[in-house]
Amino acid sequence: MSATTGPDAVGTQVLERIRSLLDDAGLDALVATSPEALVYAAGAFPPSLRTVRARLAAAIVPVTGDTEAVVVALEAPLMRQRMRVSRVTPYVEFEEHPMEATAAALRRAGLADARIGVELTALSFDAHARLQRALPGAELVGADELLSTIRVIKTPAEIAVIRDIGAAAQRIAAAACAQAGPGITERELGNLIGEGFAAAGGDELTMLVVGAGERSAHLNAPPTDRVLAAGDVVRLDVIGTKAGYHCDVARTAVVGAPAAEVTRVHDLLAEVHDRALEAVRPGAQSADVYRIYREAMDRAKLPAYHFVGHGLGITLHEEPFVHARTSVPLEPGMVLCIEPLTAIDGEFGIQIEDELVVTEDGCELITRADGLLTIGG
Amino acid sequence: MSATTGPDAVGTQVLERIRSLLDDAGLDALVATSPEALVYAAGAFPPSLRTVRARLAAAIVPVTGDTEAVVVALEAPLMRQRMRVSRVTPYVEFEEHPMEATAAALRRAGLADARIGVELTALSFDAHARLQRALPGAELVGADELLSTIRVIKTPAEIAVIRDIGAAAQRIAAAACAQAGPGITERELGNLIGEGFAAAGGDELTMLVVGAGERSAHLNAPPTDRVLAAGDVVRLDVIGTKAGYHCDVARTAVVGAPAAEVTRVHDLLAEVHDRALEAVRPGAQSADVYRIYREAMDRAKLPAYHFVGHGLGITLHEEPFVHARTSVPLEPGMVLCIEPLTAIDGEFGIQIEDELVVTEDGCELITRADGLLTIGG
Repeated sequence: MSATTGPDAVGTQVLERIRSLLDDAGLDALVATSPEALVYAAGAFPPSLRTVRARLAAAIVPVTGDTEAVVVALEAPLMRQRMRVSRVTPYVEFEEHPMEATAAALRRAGLADARIGVELTALSFDAHARLQRALPGAELVGADELLSTIRVIKTPAEIAVIRDIGAAAQRIAAAACAQAGPGITERELGNLIGEGFAAAGGDELTMLVVGAGERSAHLNAPPTDRVLAAGDVVRLDVIGTKAGYHCDVARTAVVGAPAAEVTRVHDLLAEVHDRALEAVRPGAQSADVYRIYREAMDRAKLPAYHFVGHGLGITLHEEPFVHARTSVPLEPGMVLCIEPLTAIDGEFGIQIEDELVVTEDGCELITRADGLLTIGG
Repeated sequence: MSATTGPDAVGTQVLERIRSLLDDAGLDALVATSPEALVYAAGAFPPSLRTVRARLAAAIVPVTGDTEAVVVALEAPLMRQRMRVSRVTPYVEFEEHPMEATAAALRRAGLADARIGVELTALSFDAHARLQRALPGAELVGADELLSTIRVIKTPAEIAVIRDIGAAAQRIAAAACAQAGPGITERELGNLIGEGFAAAGGDELTMLVVGAGERSAHLNAPPTDRVLAAGDVVRLDVIGTKAGYHCDVARTAVVGAPAAEVTRVHDLLAEVHDRALEAVRPGAQSADVYRIYREAMDRAKLPAYHFVGHGLGITLHEEPFVHARTSVPLEPGMVLCIEPLTAIDGEFGIQIEDELVVTEDGCELITRADGLLTIGG
C-alpha cells in the first residue's frame, strides 16, 4: 500500500505500530505531549514548545478513528504543513489552556470516559491535574514505558532516515578535521561542522561537542574560543537531527602527531570497540556488551563510563541502554550507538562512537570509525 | 559589597531577591528544576537536561543556609565550573533517581519537613510523586507564580547582560542583510546571523527566524533552502542567549525595492510601534499598550496578533505579556519586547521588534528599528 521508505512510510508504519500496541495494552488512545512523542505520533512538534513552556501541544492517537493534534494557534499553519494527522486543532494562547483544548478534542472523539495513555514523566503535575479535571470520567494511565517499548524497534522507514543523517555525520566530522588546521578555535571547527550539517539537510545540531586538549575530557563540552594547538586531542560528537531523527557519531582527532600515550589509549579503545560490535546480535544481553568494555577498562586501569551505548531515534538517548544495571536482549530493528570512551580528567578524553542496526543475524554498521582523525597533519 | 554588573553581581543580586521573596511567601526553600529556574537560581543548567529527559537537575535555595545543586554525575565537573552554588552534588544515572537524590540533599539540609516551593508547571507528574514519596513530611507548594513575580523585575546586573546581547542582535541582523544579496538562501542568511552571534559571544540561537516571501508570514519559520528573490519581504527574528539571558530582536528586510503595499503596511506598523513605545512607563497598563496596536490594526483591516509584547529574560516569553486578556501595571526594572507585526497569509509578514527597560519615568530603548532593511539594494 505504501512505500517502504520515505516520509509517508515513516508515518504509516509508526501509526500501525502505535495502534496495535495500544490495543494490546487495553488503552483506547494515546495523548502524546513530549516533543519526541509528538514527532513519533504526528511527525513534528511546534518549534516554540521548546522555548515557551506554556505552549503545550498534544497528539491524539485513538486505537481506531482519526488522529488529531492540538497546538497553539500561531503555529497551526506550520503544523498543518508538517504534521501527519487527520486534523490540527488550534487553541488561542491566554484564552484557553492547552489541556482544556485537548480534553475538548477527546470529548468530540467520544473518548471522554476512555482509558488514555499519557506521559507521566513528560506531562507536568499542573497539566496532568488540568486534563484530569476537564475529563473527570477518563482514566489517565502512565504510558511512558509502553511508548518506550513501541519506539525501541524501528520500522524500515525510520531506519532509512537514521542511516541517512548518521552517514552524513561521519562524513562531516572527517571533512571538518581535514579542512581545519592548528590555530583554529573549537568554535570555528564547530562552525565547519554546522555548515556541513546544514548542507546535508540536517534540522539542527542539538548538542554538538567540540572539546580540545583537557576539554576533550569534559563529557558534554560545547565549542568555545579555545585555540587548537599542536598535540591537542580533540573530541567531536556530532549530535543533531534530520526529519526528526538523531545522529550521534563521535570521533577523536589529534592536532599533528599524537603522543604515544594517546595512541596507546586509542588503540585499546578501538580494540574494545571491535569486540563490542562483534557481540551485538539478536539475543545478546546488553549488559554483556557493556561488560566487554568495562572489564577492558578496569584491566587497563582507565576510567570507564557507566554505559557504553544506547538506543538512538527521535531522542538521543533512549532504550536500550547498554550498561550493567539492567539488561535487555537485543532484537532486530533496534538502532544502537556503541561508544567506548575514557576521560582522563585534566589530560584528555578519547571516544569512538558508531551507529548500527541490529539485524536478524548480527548487526549492520551505519558508520565505522577508522582510527584517529588528524587535524593539520 | 559586590559590583553592580558582571556575572558575580547577577548571582548576588538574584539570590538576595529569591531569599527575600521566599521568606515573604512563608516558604523555607525553593527547589528549582526547569532550565530557566536553574539558570536564575544557580547560573546554569546541565546541557543534556534538554536532550535527555531523565537527567533531571535541581537547585536548592533555602531562605538561610547554603545553596546546593543536584546534577547528573557526568555533568558535575562542568556544573562545578558554571554554577554559582555552595555545593554541586552528583547522582549516578540509572542508580539513583534525581528526585531521590534531591530529597536526600533536602534532608541533609534539615528541610525534610519544610514548606518547599516547586514548579508544578515544570516538574513532571512522575517527578513530583517521587519527591513527595521520598519526603513524606514535606509540603510541596506550587511556586510557579512566585518565581514569575520574582523574575519579572530585573536586577541592574541582569539588565546589563540583556542590554549587551540585545544590542548585538540588532547589529548582527543589519550586518547580515548588508552582506547578503539576491540568490542567497534563507539558510545562508541564517548562517551569517549565526556567525555574527557566535562572534558576539552568544551561547546559541535558540529560535532563529528567517522567512522570505510568503514564508515571512509564518510566525516561527526556521531558515530553509528557499532562495531570496527580488521583491521578497524577509522577516528576521534573532532569538538566542548569552550568559543565560535572551535577546529577541525582529527586523523586516526587502530584497531590492519594496512594493508600494509593503511600504504602506510597514509605515503603518512603524507608527504603531512609536506610539506603543511612548506609552510604556511605570503605572501604564500593559493592556492599554496592546490596545494601541490592536485598534490601529483593526482600523487598517490588517490581521493583528494576539499580543504585541512580552517580558524578556532567561526565557524568551515571560511576564508581563502585553495583550488584552489580562493587564498588569508596568514597573521600573521590567524588560520588555514590543513587537507589532502583521502576517498576511500567502503574501508577506512584517514585524518590528525592539527591546526596552522600564525606567522611573518612561523607558530606555535597548534597540531601535530604523525603517525597512534592504538586501542587495
